[in-house]
Amino acid sequence: MAYLKLDSSKLNRFVNSNEVPEMQALVNAANRELRDGTGAGNNYREWLHLPTNYDHQEFERIKKDAQQIQSDSDFLIVIGIGGSYLGAKMAVDFLHGDFDDLNSSNHQTRVIFAGNSLSSSYLHDLLELIDGHDFSINMVSKSGTTTEPSVAFRIFRKRLIKQYGAKEAVNRIYVTTDAKNGALRQEVNEKGYESFIIPNGIGGRYSVLTPVGLLPIAVSGGDIDQLMLGAHKAEDELDNPDLTQNNAYRYAALRNILYRKGYGVELLENYEPNMRMFAEWWKQLTGESEGKDHKGIFPASANLTTDLHSLGQYIQQGRRILMETVVKVNHPRHDVDIPHNDKNTDELQYLEGHTVDYVNTRAYEGVVKAHTDGGVPVMTVNIPDESAYTLGYLIYFFEVAIAISGYLNGVNPFNQPGVEEYKTNMFILLNKPGYTNK
Amino acid sequence: MAYLKLDSSKLNRFVNSNEVPEMQALVNAANRELRDGTGAGNNYREWLHLPTNYDHQEFERIKKDAQQIQSDSDFLIVIGIGGSYLGAKMAVDFLHGDFDDLNSSNHQTRVIFAGNSLSSSYLHDLLELIDGHDFSINMVSKSGTTTEPSVAFRIFRKRLIKQYGAKEAVNRIYVTTDAKNGALRQEVNEKGYESFIIPNGIGGRYSVLTPVGLLPIAVSGGDIDQLMLGAHKAEDELDNPDLTQNNAYRYAALRNILYRKGYGVELLENYEPNMRMFAEWWKQLTGESEGKDHKGIFPASANLTTDLHSLGQYIQQGRRILMETVVKVNHPRHDVDIPHNDKNTDELQYLEGHTVDYVNTRAYEGVVKAHTDGGVPVMTVNIPDESAYTLGYLIYFFEVAIAISGYLNGVNPFNQPGVEEYKTNMFILLNKPGYTNK
Repeated sequence: MAYLKLDSSKLNRFVNSNEVPEMQALVNAANRELRDGTGAGNNYREWLHLPTNYDHQEFERIKKDAQQIQSDSDFLIVIGIGGSYLGAKMAVDFLHGDFDDLNSSNHQTRVIFAGNSLSSSYLHDLLELIDGHDFSINMVSKSGTTTEPSVAFRIFRKRLIKQYGAKEAVNRIYVTTDAKNGALRQEVNEKGYESFIIPNGIGGRYSVLTPVGLLPIAVSGGDIDQLMLGAHKAEDELDNPDLTQNNAYRYAALRNILYRKGYGVELLENYEPNMRMFAEWWKQLTGESEGKDHKGIFPASANLTTDLHSLGQYIQQGRRILMETVVKVNHPRHDVDIPHNDKNTDELQYLEGHTVDYVNTRAYEGVVKAHTDGGVPVMTVNIPDESAYTLGYLIYFFEVAIAISGYLNGVNPFNQPGVEEYKTNMFILLNKPGYTNK
Repeated sequence: MAYLKLDSSKLNRFVNSNEVPEMQALVNAANRELRDGTGAGNNYREWLHLPTNYDHQEFERIKKDAQQIQSDSDFLIVIGIGGSYLGAKMAVDFLHGDFDDLNSSNHQTRVIFAGNSLSSSYLHDLLELIDGHDFSINMVSKSGTTTEPSVAFRIFRKRLIKQYGAKEAVNRIYVTTDAKNGALRQEVNEKGYESFIIPNGIGGRYSVLTPVGLLPIAVSGGDIDQLMLGAHKAEDELDNPDLTQNNAYRYAALRNILYRKGYGVELLENYEPNMRMFAEWWKQLTGESEGKDHKGIFPASANLTTDLHSLGQYIQQGRRILMETVVKVNHPRHDVDIPHNDKNTDELQYLEGHTVDYVNTRAYEGVVKAHTDGGVPVMTVNIPDESAYTLGYLIYFFEVAIAISGYLNGVNPFNQPGVEEYKTNMFILLNKPGYTNK
């Protein structure tokens, strides 16, 4: 039986029983594009076998460096944007408690992300936060010239040198970049920074299981061995294009079926607040892979039950353009009993003897019924727990699903031709050499 | 000149010059529905004059109680969901630095929100966080029987009694609820908790300037006097329905014009990470007010420049269903210089002598041009700064805009008939007395 269950049993009124089988031939074609490399973007498929084919020496070095950082730094400032930030942030949050950073009795190194915006206040506040503390930097960028991380790197490298001197600063800079090319690799060669490789055949949004994600996750205390093992399990289980066997492919087929019926916005949902960033990672994976040529499902998210009291009204009764995909944890990290009360003023007596998670799961079931009754198709990816193993599987699940989904919609799932346009405009406004207003 | 500017100058290719004037008669009608109380939901318009007509005695009591909590509590646990949470959380974030909670040299009382989900892990982690610390509770609920906050209240009240004894616990519970009715008011009367009133004529999503928002904001150190003064200014400036004069009404008209052309998803965007929750507050305000009768703009959000490296591809080249509204801060809380570097490996030399905010603003301009060139209409609400005064104005701006927008789309902007359905299902699944599966 598959490690992760995809529950599509509530789609009956939205998808007829013939529709999934009738997608099989298209899914087979998409699978050949992906596996045989006959599809567009075929230079960016190295993530497919990454869980079984990665640099084990570098992997061990990441674990050793993580221990070093844990022992000599209160903060690790991870500088990166897009795929050089979202996967790591998502995983760190997923694998940790909701208040781990805030809890002063937790002496773990805090992993803080920077260079993922151009907010001057944010940079100022972060400089203030680390004042008087030991810190290290993990600079993550393929090219080394992306504006947001490069600006942040200048600022925090300057602080590092001021605090430790130029020589010791070198020992506190960890660079994740291209193996041979780019500004950062050049700087690594000149200065002798410790460095890790972003493989050429893996785009940013598919890079969480490379050193891009692995170093920050390891520093936060996440078990990266288990993470890779879970992804390995998914690689093994999810290579059969048969839609009766492959849950990731079935998810891809179903969301394409729904999209073609007019459900153009997909909400990724959770019932655990520490999974908020998982949806942000998923938004890049789906939006950047599929949103092109004026096509594609628009990715949005909701955190439940929280947002039932904000977006819930729209979902229940607004325009019928939404579909929902829930990632539901079967066994949360902790459970809490609902306490007894002498009086029943709050009308909760009927819940005494139950746990909070019992109520959370009944809420989930009630929501699925209410939304499907209201005309919103809902699918659920059931995950057993919030372990690193499960997360590894879940990452690979969505990665392979979205690659297939992109090919099903007739686009190149691995390029992002639209992300340069604002940069060009910005460079013209900033008078960057080589850019002039034509 | 209006305190906040609405820049719609980039809409030329999307909205013809005749279209806004041709909406004036409809806007006048919507304005009469709102101001004269002839529209649906007319019992929920008390927020309209709240900035000039609130209980000043209670307001002073909030400030005094906030000082008391600041002096005797490391944490204030604010228990509420939906409108009883989003406004306060949004304002606390907006008015503070990005790392204020994490910065141990800041000895301010931390304001933490609970009862806004049914995550058992979250509750467990929060109990662990406050262990060994002084804390107080602000329970916020109109009825006192909403499941999420009521469950959390049982749990934290029990902890409070265990920590301080039943008598002292009473002094650490602050209740914000209905003036006369409901379970919480009953409990206040029995136990003698300090309490504040949620006015009858103000719905949850319009309640941030009532004690619902004011107490947590004041405890966090926010200046609630300035907040109300800013809202007062907006109340004065935004009561003229003339679309050449009223920026909030013009925003309402323009988003309705765009909606009718097929732009069915609106992204609220910022360029400052501490404004992330502002969009969440706005999503409830818009989605709950307008998403009904199978109509309404679907509200989503993006944090920039961060999400240009995730959602940016979709926005630039995906389906042309998106419109964007940016809230852009003219003068951020802090600015930071871009440091000099000996080498130009990172190609940033051309930015030396500039500040980070200068680059952020050029990025914003580049994005607006790229997106409008790509077929996405963009409007901007320019705000001078992130002061409490400005926030008060901004809150009222969107409140009145969305009321008008709802009437323009022919719905009752003040009800939320769809939020009960999942609750009913959940109560049946939980065997709540009085609920049975029919």
